[in-house]
Amino acid sequence: MLTVNAIAATSATEPLVRTTVERRDLGPRDILIEISYAGICHSDIHTVRGDWGRVAYPLTVGHEIVGHVTAVGPEVTRHAVGDRVGVGCMVNSCRECANCRAGQEQYCEAGNTGTYAAVDRDGTITQGGYSTHIVVDQDFVLRVPTEIPIEAAAPLLCAGITTYSPLAHWKAGPGKKVAVVGMGGLGHMAVKLAAAMGAEVTVLSQTLGKKDDGLAFGAQHYYATSDPATFEALRNGFDLIVNTVSAPIDINQYLSLLRLDGTLVSVGAPPEPLPVQVFSLFGGRRSFAGSSIGGIAETQEMLDFCAERGIAAEVEVIGADQVNDAYERVLKSDVRYRFVIDVDTLR
Amino acid sequence: MLTVNAIAATSATEPLVRTTVERRDLGPRDILIEISYAGICHSDIHTVRGDWGRVAYPLTVGHEIVGHVTAVGPEVTRHAVGDRVGVGCMVNSCRECANCRAGQEQYCEAGNTGTYAAVDRDGTITQGGYSTHIVVDQDFVLRVPTEIPIEAAAPLLCAGITTYSPLAHWKAGPGKKVAVVGMGGLGHMAVKLAAAMGAEVTVLSQTLGKKDDGLAFGAQHYYATSDPATFEALRNGFDLIVNTVSAPIDINQYLSLLRLDGTLVSVGAPPEPLPVQVFSLFGGRRSFAGSSIGGIAETQEMLDFCAERGIAAEVEVIGADQVNDAYERVLKSDVRYRFVIDVDTLR
Repeated sequence: MLTVNAIAATSATEPLVRTTVERRDLGPRDILIEISYAGICHSDIHTVRGDWGRVAYPLTVGHEIVGHVTAVGPEVTRHAVGDRVGVGCMVNSCRECANCRAGQEQYCEAGNTGTYAAVDRDGTITQGGYSTHIVVDQDFVLRVPTEIPIEAAAPLLCAGITTYSPLAHWKAGPGKKVAVVGMGGLGHMAVKLAAAMGAEVTVLSQTLGKKDDGLAFGAQHYYATSDPATFEALRNGFDLIVNTVSAPIDINQYLSLLRLDGTLVSVGAPPEPLPVQVFSLFGGRRSFAGSSIGGIAETQEMLDFCAERGIAAEVEVIGADQVNDAYERVLKSDVRYRFVIDVDTLR
Repeated sequence: MLTVNAIAATSATEPLVRTTVERRDLGPRDILIEISYAGICHSDIHTVRGDWGRVAYPLTVGHEIVGHVTAVGPEVTRHAVGDRVGVGCMVNSCRECANCRAGQEQYCEAGNTGTYAAVDRDGTITQGGYSTHIVVDQDFVLRVPTEIPIEAAAPLLCAGITTYSPLAHWKAGPGKKVAVVGMGGLGHMAVKLAAAMGAEVTVLSQTLGKKDDGLAFGAQHYYATSDPATFEALRNGFDLIVNTVSAPIDINQYLSLLRLDGTLVSVGAPPEPLPVQVFSLFGGRRSFAGSSIGGIAETQEMLDFCAERGIAAEVEVIGADQVNDAYERVLKSDVRYRFVIDVDTLR
């Protein structure tokens, strides 16, 4: 067992504190990673604050993890000491169900093992990446190409794959009109990725405050959703809408922006149900879908795609002692566009 | 102008009465049809009772129309006097928008012209098929193959195409598990059509009361949705669920029955919004979609498919004076499976 420095929540209401967590001894197929950077995802905040259900404290969150391999178990073949690697939102799955066999481990029928707050195969609760080291089965460790600046690679492991996967699945590309709702951590990645795939990208954001950024990231159009004229102007306009906002939205208003056979896919997860008017779907055989991260092979594909196209997240690097402040700023949408913890400040 | 016998609603609350309606003089591309049978669709009842908004009275409804051509305008090429023909839910569309040009007139961006209660191109309100004759542009008149008993063909023009279109679009066929929610006019057609397409069909009905019929129509499994064990037993089980029920359903419970990339398509139209938990969609990249009738070419394809496979609706033929009673029985789901008015009783 390895005791390593970490930041943890001790309750749903108190600030995160410096502490240590235990990492298991390396199993035959395990990899020990020395973490360099860990991104702060809105899900981290929802989880530690109990918004998505009860969790066991103390809890270390973080599922946007990059670092280097420092040790490997005897049967490890996929990575070697010194490799630059990453870990995303899951660290295991059943590997036997139809979805796992199809490379869609995120939809494991037994439930994938989340990188934090999940029950691991040894019965312990998984602890995430706000920490100096982590031990992960080799099959859930990704290769992070050196073309991507390492701190800017961290958010790709969640924000990147969460937006890449639906864009790829619903075939964003040349000739397709794609709208991205929200310009936060997920939204800014969706814009970059959809534009790189060749789609015509429109940002739908509450205000025009980030318009210059949106256009610089590859969007061709930028509209404020606070202006009702936006919904009139864009009616029947999109093949695909990626909703990255986890606050409740007027779903029927957004569905009316889809053209024939269009899909609105939500990657943001409002806790309250959204009231869908079936008539909003009828008019144009529209679909309302959900998408959750991506499979391991697809995550590797996304990282390679980003390396090839020069895509990375826009990050603000912070020290370990700034995490509580960063949480408050995330909740106020005051970040361009992802906080990343410099884990050296934890050593 | 032709004055013809009909049945009409004079208000949202009074019984339908015998009356007459006017049919326009034949335009160059118009067809005069002597109607033989007209089906009673639940939409007829919603419309005359004002459930879907205000309508102008007196109003003759009916959009499941079969009969014979008795006269044609000088430029008509698609049908000839004596042909056995049908008219469904729409009698015109803009013909210019992308959807019309793609043969998806039902999704006309300007709105298709409904067979009744719609504003026609001459400014009059369209009057439907509970009537001895109707005049329709040749492009919206279907050929009804003689292999299909004529009275059993009428419901194909709405109930048939409304279920055929989503089954075809989402590729019901060999290897696909399809559930049909509801065993009414639409549901019984969905079962017959999906089974004929080669899918493994499961009926989800409130009770097991129509189980024998469901299996006879081609379903392989039949479950009662009043039994909570049904939802446990069938979790992650279906590629496609066709919801034919227009009463509100617990949508999240049904979404949980979809496997990876499955779609629940609603052809029933509850007036109230359905509260969709986005988490229900996340777990398996599920979609909730809507589908509205079908295009004209697709409606012909459906009629030809039914003729080839020996498929028709199960009907209960009634006289003109039984329509009000039939409405009450439809509202109580007391019909196996579609009332069809013998229009000879109106002459």
